[in-house]
Amino acid sequence: MTQIAKGLEGVLFTESKLTFINGSEGILTHLGIPIQEWAEKSTFEELSLALLDTELPTAAELAKFDAELKANRAIPREVEDLIRNMPRGINPMQALRTAVSYLGLTDKESEEVTPEARRAISIRLIAQFSTIIAAINRVQEGQDIIAPRADLTHAGNYLYMLNGKEPTPEQARLFDIALILHADHGMNASTFTAIATSSTISDMYSCIVSAIGALKGPLHGGANEQVMVMLDEVGTPDNAVDYITDKLNRKEKIMGVGHRVYKNFDPRSRVLRDYAALVADKEGKSNYYQILENIEKTVVDRIGDRGIYPNVDFYSGTVYADLGIKKEYFTPIFALARISGWCASVIEYSQNNRLLRPDAYYIGKSNAHYVDLKDRQ
Amino acid sequence: MTQIAKGLEGVLFTESKLTFINGSEGILTHLGIPIQEWAEKSTFEELSLALLDTELPTAAELAKFDAELKANRAIPREVEDLIRNMPRGINPMQALRTAVSYLGLTDKESEEVTPEARRAISIRLIAQFSTIIAAINRVQEGQDIIAPRADLTHAGNYLYMLNGKEPTPEQARLFDIALILHADHGMNASTFTAIATSSTISDMYSCIVSAIGALKGPLHGGANEQVMVMLDEVGTPDNAVDYITDKLNRKEKIMGVGHRVYKNFDPRSRVLRDYAALVADKEGKSNYYQILENIEKTVVDRIGDRGIYPNVDFYSGTVYADLGIKKEYFTPIFALARISGWCASVIEYSQNNRLLRPDAYYIGKSNAHYVDLKDRQ
Repeated sequence: MTQIAKGLEGVLFTESKLTFINGSEGILTHLGIPIQEWAEKSTFEELSLALLDTELPTAAELAKFDAELKANRAIPREVEDLIRNMPRGINPMQALRTAVSYLGLTDKESEEVTPEARRAISIRLIAQFSTIIAAINRVQEGQDIIAPRADLTHAGNYLYMLNGKEPTPEQARLFDIALILHADHGMNASTFTAIATSSTISDMYSCIVSAIGALKGPLHGGANEQVMVMLDEVGTPDNAVDYITDKLNRKEKIMGVGHRVYKNFDPRSRVLRDYAALVADKEGKSNYYQILENIEKTVVDRIGDRGIYPNVDFYSGTVYADLGIKKEYFTPIFALARISGWCASVIEYSQNNRLLRPDAYYIGKSNAHYVDLKDRQ
Repeated sequence: MTQIAKGLEGVLFTESKLTFINGSEGILTHLGIPIQEWAEKSTFEELSLALLDTELPTAAELAKFDAELKANRAIPREVEDLIRNMPRGINPMQALRTAVSYLGLTDKESEEVTPEARRAISIRLIAQFSTIIAAINRVQEGQDIIAPRADLTHAGNYLYMLNGKEPTPEQARLFDIALILHADHGMNASTFTAIATSSTISDMYSCIVSAIGALKGPLHGGANEQVMVMLDEVGTPDNAVDYITDKLNRKEKIMGVGHRVYKNFDPRSRVLRDYAALVADKEGKSNYYQILENIEKTVVDRIGDRGIYPNVDFYSGTVYADLGIKKEYFTPIFALARISGWCASVIEYSQNNRLLRPDAYYIGKSNAHYVDLKDRQ
């Protein structure tokens, strides 16, 4: 009996020191440190550097990295022009894919594949992803591009470039936490696609462009966007219990609930829920937030005993919407966070590279022959 | 003992009816038909359609497909402008990646993922890859873009758009055969990367852009370019025997000799060699061709008994050079052929899709904790 590992599920293909996931126990660690600690105590900048270098940085290393990120926030004029000249109404992930691909053309170091060059390019990519995504969002909405500022955090600067005003410290920190929670997640499809590309010793930009393409698919990046579609359907907090009860009775899938990997609970969702609650208490509960609270209660009451809980997409959608991000930009925001995991994973894999070349099980014809066109039916 | 399937070698992850490879016996078939028959009796257009639809087309189907390809050869003005405005001296695969990504922005159907839409987009991609690659080549060489002609074959039209003059029928047919030989080759790294991207149900352009990025790596697409570096080092036919003998004595790798999959002989290399010889007999032997003949003789004499023979990259490099293609464009030419295999493989996989999500074996720290910055060494 031929074994076909569909979806490559459970197939180990490399070693990694970056991320550990135990789905049944709800554990996610980076460098052995639980995601909860990263979210509570660290920043997106620090986690990014820790992933790139596979160790906690010293204060001096972090300061240097932070300065490099800030110095690299501006994007080349050609890339700005490219973004401005793109057709309107396009999928923003297609725009991101194209802008990052073009960015590679402007980087004189783009063809270098040493670990040092890959690391330097990664820093530029992490910094410039933010500027590119904000620029795409604004241009597509008919607004001017806003230049980055070097006096804001990575998360705060994104919200500034997007909305044209400085976020409150709480908003910036809430967004920072959301980025931390999405920075890496083992061998998900986009990280794996980046590695597949890098396994031919291709350049960093090609790897990241591939990853953007994979993240773009609705089976991967689109989940929190679907949560917002649901929240918009629900409309008002009063309507939430009936809506969910109805869905459950009809055994329909509820977006943002349950997870392929986390069978009991998603450790990321608790962190985000708790901080979102803190911000809501301080700044007032938005309509979305109230709907979310009511859905959450209903879900936990009705199916929590089956180990099915809201996942991180459930909370991140609301958080993003309340920070001024439209749902069409949720997947680019996922990319804004995951760029660090992509880069770190490519760098790690490159240092022990092996060309990826699995096989397909052939089920087609054998011993066939070419038939002349005139003799075919 | 944990099993790690490095490079996913030997791992079956899906079923396919497209291509069968038996490396030890030197067998390569598409739809069960040996590659030799495709090369001798078919055309790149017919093989492309057969792969897309997983069956030999009727004469009417082929005529319709051929007309569709011809009707779709022109590229949008914006993509032409993009290619014209790219910096000079860039890697042409980065240019191709960017132009194809932008092409997606101009295609109103790009977000459609039904089999019908994927097939329609594939036809446009197959047609337009040719125009895009020729345009990049000409612009990067400081020449004007030449518009496609609808009265030439796919192979003939490429050579026309590249060189500005119609190829002889023999040249067009030789290039056609080279395209046939490279159209598909099972789960190579670029096809696999296209599938990894499509496994999230991403769009066709994202899949193909990912594949371009993977093919770009020197472990995958760069082999025949390296053959030309070698031929240039050899310089003259007289020098070939000494050069190779010297390499063999020093146990150095000879580019274009031996193959990871084909342990005895590469069935594609014989076909290409035979037709190249035919053209050389008719049009005269070029300097490269004579060097190649001498290298081949030496290699077969010295290590042929160990089952190490020239592979398809060995002959294709010379063939391309003699058709006016610079070695920097060999990998884009590989893409020009493989686009059919990429599209067909994505379409086939999509019809029985499973998200790809393998695992890495975690070898990092466990039970670590976040250490405050001030307490770190």
